[in-house]
This record gives sequence, structure tokens and C-alpha cells, in this order.
Amino acid sequence: MTPYEQQDSEAGSEAEELRQPLNEYITAVNDLLSAELETTLPAGWQVPERLREAMKYSLDAGGKRLRPLLVLAACEAAGGEREAAVPVAAAIEMVHTYSLIHDDLPAMDNDDYRRGKLTNHKVFGDAAAILAGDALLTHAFYSVVQASRRYGVSADSALSIVEDLAEMAGPRGMVGGQIADMDGEQGLTDLAQLQYIHLHKTGDLIIFSLLAGGRIAGAGQQQLEALREFGTAIGLAFQIQDDILDLVGDEGKLGKKTGSDIKQQKVTYPYFIGLEASREEVRRLTDNARTAVLKGGFADSRRLLEIADYLMKRDH
Amino acid sequence: MTPYEQQDSEAGSEAEELRQPLNEYITAVNDLLSAELETTLPAGWQVPERLREAMKYSLDAGGKRLRPLLVLAACEAAGGEREAAVPVAAAIEMVHTYSLIHDDLPAMDNDDYRRGKLTNHKVFGDAAAILAGDALLTHAFYSVVQASRRYGVSADSALSIVEDLAEMAGPRGMVGGQIADMDGEQGLTDLAQLQYIHLHKTGDLIIFSLLAGGRIAGAGQQQLEALREFGTAIGLAFQIQDDILDLVGDEGKLGKKTGSDIKQQKVTYPYFIGLEASREEVRRLTDNARTAVLKGGFADSRRLLEIADYLMKRDH
Repeated sequence: MTPYEQQDSEAGSEAEELRQPLNEYITAVNDLLSAELETTLPAGWQVPERLREAMKYSLDAGGKRLRPLLVLAACEAAGGEREAAVPVAAAIEMVHTYSLIHDDLPAMDNDDYRRGKLTNHKVFGDAAAILAGDALLTHAFYSVVQASRRYGVSADSALSIVEDLAEMAGPRGMVGGQIADMDGEQGLTDLAQLQYIHLHKTGDLIIFSLLAGGRIAGAGQQQLEALREFGTAIGLAFQIQDDILDLVGDEGKLGKKTGSDIKQQKVTYPYFIGLEASREEVRRLTDNARTAVLKGGFADSRRLLEIADYLMKRDH
Repeated sequence: MTPYEQQDSEAGSEAEELRQPLNEYITAVNDLLSAELETTLPAGWQVPERLREAMKYSLDAGGKRLRPLLVLAACEAAGGEREAAVPVAAAIEMVHTYSLIHDDLPAMDNDDYRRGKLTNHKVFGDAAAILAGDALLTHAFYSVVQASRRYGVSADSALSIVEDLAEMAGPRGMVGGQIADMDGEQGLTDLAQLQYIHLHKTGDLIIFSLLAGGRIAGAGQQQLEALREFGTAIGLAFQIQDDILDLVGDEGKLGKKTGSDIKQQKVTYPYFIGLEASREEVRRLTDNARTAVLKGGFADSRRLLEIADYLMKRDH
């Protein structure tokens, strides 16, 4: 028995955490993020109670918190302080949350539940849900600026983050992807169109998160390019993995029924190229992601590599 | 006959323009703004055609363009270059336009027409209208950043404009005012609540426009405070004048039926304090606005004073 195995058997849960460094990191990120979101509306602001509640309801709904994780991981990989990345991590979670609230509306996907909770408009009504989404999107930009106000991120870097966020969440980015997705549901489409949807509806915010983390740390062009390549690869891998899990995932772990894409006649990667080729594509993209990170020459790229691994192997 | 009168009778329309300097200025602002909005999505961006059209449809719908006018007037009053203010003027028009698109949705005010044109969702459908609004709001922040990229506005100033915009258009500002207005429609309310709604639903974007103009010109704290006071006064005067015009305005000039507030059981200033006292309040606020401008010690405050006058005397 090696010392490590001995420690392992004697202190099971601690050892388990040591073997799951990413889980520990995810917990730390979630704690920082929750505290930030709790106080993101300045104490002196008069905000109508119902709006405050509607914003909070969906921000609290949880989820993978993948985007905040990427902001912090990229910032730390490039040698930045974890805390300085938190306001931008909160911002991207607000943007992600607003997009889900609007997406769930009767006029859009008309979903009653998300992550086992009633959707925002089922609780607060359609009008308040639209406004809560608008408020979260707007406030995200306020939160980005706080990285500069509170942690001394340079005005130049903060302004570039604002510009990136507007580009990647706006008409060229996420919103563009959403309208293409909506139009796609009415009779599709080819693999290029599906790639466009995946890249913009999901990928752009992932790329943004990584670039923003890099910018906060003061990363140079070479590292920013590496982060962009890394994000493009894991963003698409993430989405293909979603498609695969919808087809063959464990309903218990996913928390939703599989096969919903087929029922909704959504085209997916497996639909176009088959299941095995889709799995192969996830592996290939994950390799690309690894290569990109290594090219960046980061001080510590461990977390980014772990995240890429996690995304490939996840089952929910 | 004085030389001036002679010129007047000989070249009627030109002389009329000279007597209406504000009209000329409004035309110049509108031309700059239209050109800016036309090219606000960078040429290299892939934006789905339907989204592009839905954004453009409502941006082209016109209206008073009051907020862009204020951005440019404040910038020039504080000695800044007119052109440098144009991207921010476009941004505030995008924010105003998005708020109208979302406001008109069936889930909100359910309006079929605005300014004599079908509302956005009547033309493009509810889902596309929601997304077009989201896209305009997001892209507004991109446009603010361009003031720095294209006209050398300092990153510090541009970042403060981003922060102001997020504060005054978001949960503490316009969106807060909208939800209070919506809640108010279900059984109101007192004058303080109505003032809260007016200040945030309409006033905050007017204050933002003036502050942003000042920031672009590099105005100091004293001038920024003067612009804030000026904006607070004309913002409320503007809204009270709207209430008055809804009650006693000329339907032909207004382009809509009067008395709609009464039919919709909306509480207004005249409802609380009577018509004559409301008119007096507009005069008082306009005087406050004039006093505020003069305190600012601007190089040229003519336009700002003309705008305050115009808002008081307008009949539509």
C-alpha cells in the first residue's frame, strides 16, 4: 500500500476531493459567484421589489455555471487574480440567464419548466419576465465595469470586454444564433447552418468568457488567440455532446427526457453524421482544444485542460 | 424695410430656417444619426437577414430623436466635437427603440401601431420582435465603445458612459420605471409613485443623454452636475407636457387620439393636480432647467436652452 492509497482509505471524502480537483474548483467558483450575484445591485439603488425578485429567481436557478468557470479559469491561467474576474463571471451568468428567460417565453419555446423549476414567466407573468431579462442583460454591462472600479482592471481592458460582450451576445453573436435556430425549426437545413447556430447560440458566450478572463489578467495577443481557439473547440464539442446526450443519455442524470430533439424535429449532429462520428468529432475537438491551450504558453493551464476533459466525458 | 426683412421676403424658406435654428440643428442631427444607424453593424458581421430587417424597421420608424439631439447638444455645449457624439447618440436611440419594441408586445401594452406604422411584432412576429429588441439593447453598448475606437474618446470616459447607460437603462433606471408603470396600471397610486415612474421610465435616458454628451466633451464635475439637473428638469417637464397633450392636444398634430390615458385609466399629472397647475409645473421646471444650464458655465449653451424652450412649447 502506497502512502497515497493509505491516506485515501483513511480519509475517503477528502481524498476523493483531491482526486477531483475540478469539483473543488467548481465549488469555489460557485461560492464566489453566488456572493457576487447576491450583492450585484448596489445597496443605494431603488429597484422595484417584483423586478428584483424576478431577476433573482432565475439567477438562483443554478445550472452548470460553465461560463463563470471559464472566466475564472482563463484569468488564472494567464496569471490574473481570481477575485478580479468575479464581476465579469457574474456578468456572463446574467447574460446567459436573460437568454434562457426570453427563450422560455410562450412567444419563443414556451417552456413551463427549466432545471425542475417553473420558468420565470410562469411565476412572474410574461411581461415581468421580459423586463427581468432586459434588466439582467443591461445590468451585465454594469457588472463588467465593476471589474475596473473594484479591482483596478484597466479601463482599456474593461472597454474591450464590453465590446466583446456586445459583439458576442448581440446580433452577430448569441441573438443571431437564436434567430437562426428559430428559423431552422421551420424546415431545415444543412450541417453548415447547424454549425452556425451552435457557434453563435452557444459558442460565442463560451469564447467571450475565455477572452474576458484573459483580458482581466492582461494576456497578450498570442494568449488571447489561444483562448479563442480553445473556446471555439470546446464550445462546439459541448454542443455536440448535448446532442449526443439528448439521444442516448441517462434521463436520471440529465434531469430531463431524452429524445426531445427528435420529437421536436430538431436537427442535431447525430442526425447529420451519425452517433459514432459525432462522438469522434467531440474527441477531435477536445484534442484541438488541448493543442490550443498548450500553444498559449500559460503559466498554469491545468484548469483549462481539466475543463476540456470534463466537457468531453460528462454524462449530464 | 430693413435688409433682413428684404432678404426674408426674397428668400422665404431659407430665412425661415434662419429663424428656426433649432429646426436646422435637428435636421443636421437626424442626418448624422441616420447615416450612423445605417452602418452600425460592421460590414464583416454575419447577421441573419430577418434580424437585421427587424432591427432596421424600428430604427427607421423615426420619432422625435430627442435623446440623440441631447447627446450632441450637450457635447457641443461643453466644447466637444459633434461627430464624436454620434455613436453614443445612435446607442441611446437603439435603447429607446428596443424599449418601444418590447413595450408594444402583446404581453406588455399590446399595441398594433406606433407612429402610424405597424409595430415590430405585427410585422416580424413576437419571437423576432423580442430578439430584435434584445439585439438593439446589446448593440447599443457596442456603439458606445465605437466613440472611443473611432473618435479617440478616452477609455475612461467611454467606460463611464457604459456604466451610466447600464445604470439608467437597467433595473434602477428605465426597466425599473417600466415595471412600476405596469404595476401602477393595476390600481394606483399617488403623485410620488407617478414621479418615480416618470423619472425612471423617461427621465433617466434623458439624463443619460446629457451626461454622455458632456463626458464625450471631457466636461468636469460641475458641468456634469449642471447637465444632470437640466436633464432631471426637462425630463419631467417633457412627461407632464405629454400628459397635458393627451388631454387637450390637437389630434392632427399628435398623430393619435387624445384622451387615451383617461380611457386606459392611466393616472397623469393633470389627474392629480389639475390642468392649470400641470402647465405651471412645466413652466417652473423649464425655468429650473434654464438656471441649471447657466450654472454650468458652458462655452455655448444656446442649443440646450432652445431645446428646453421647444419642449415647453411643443404641441405634439
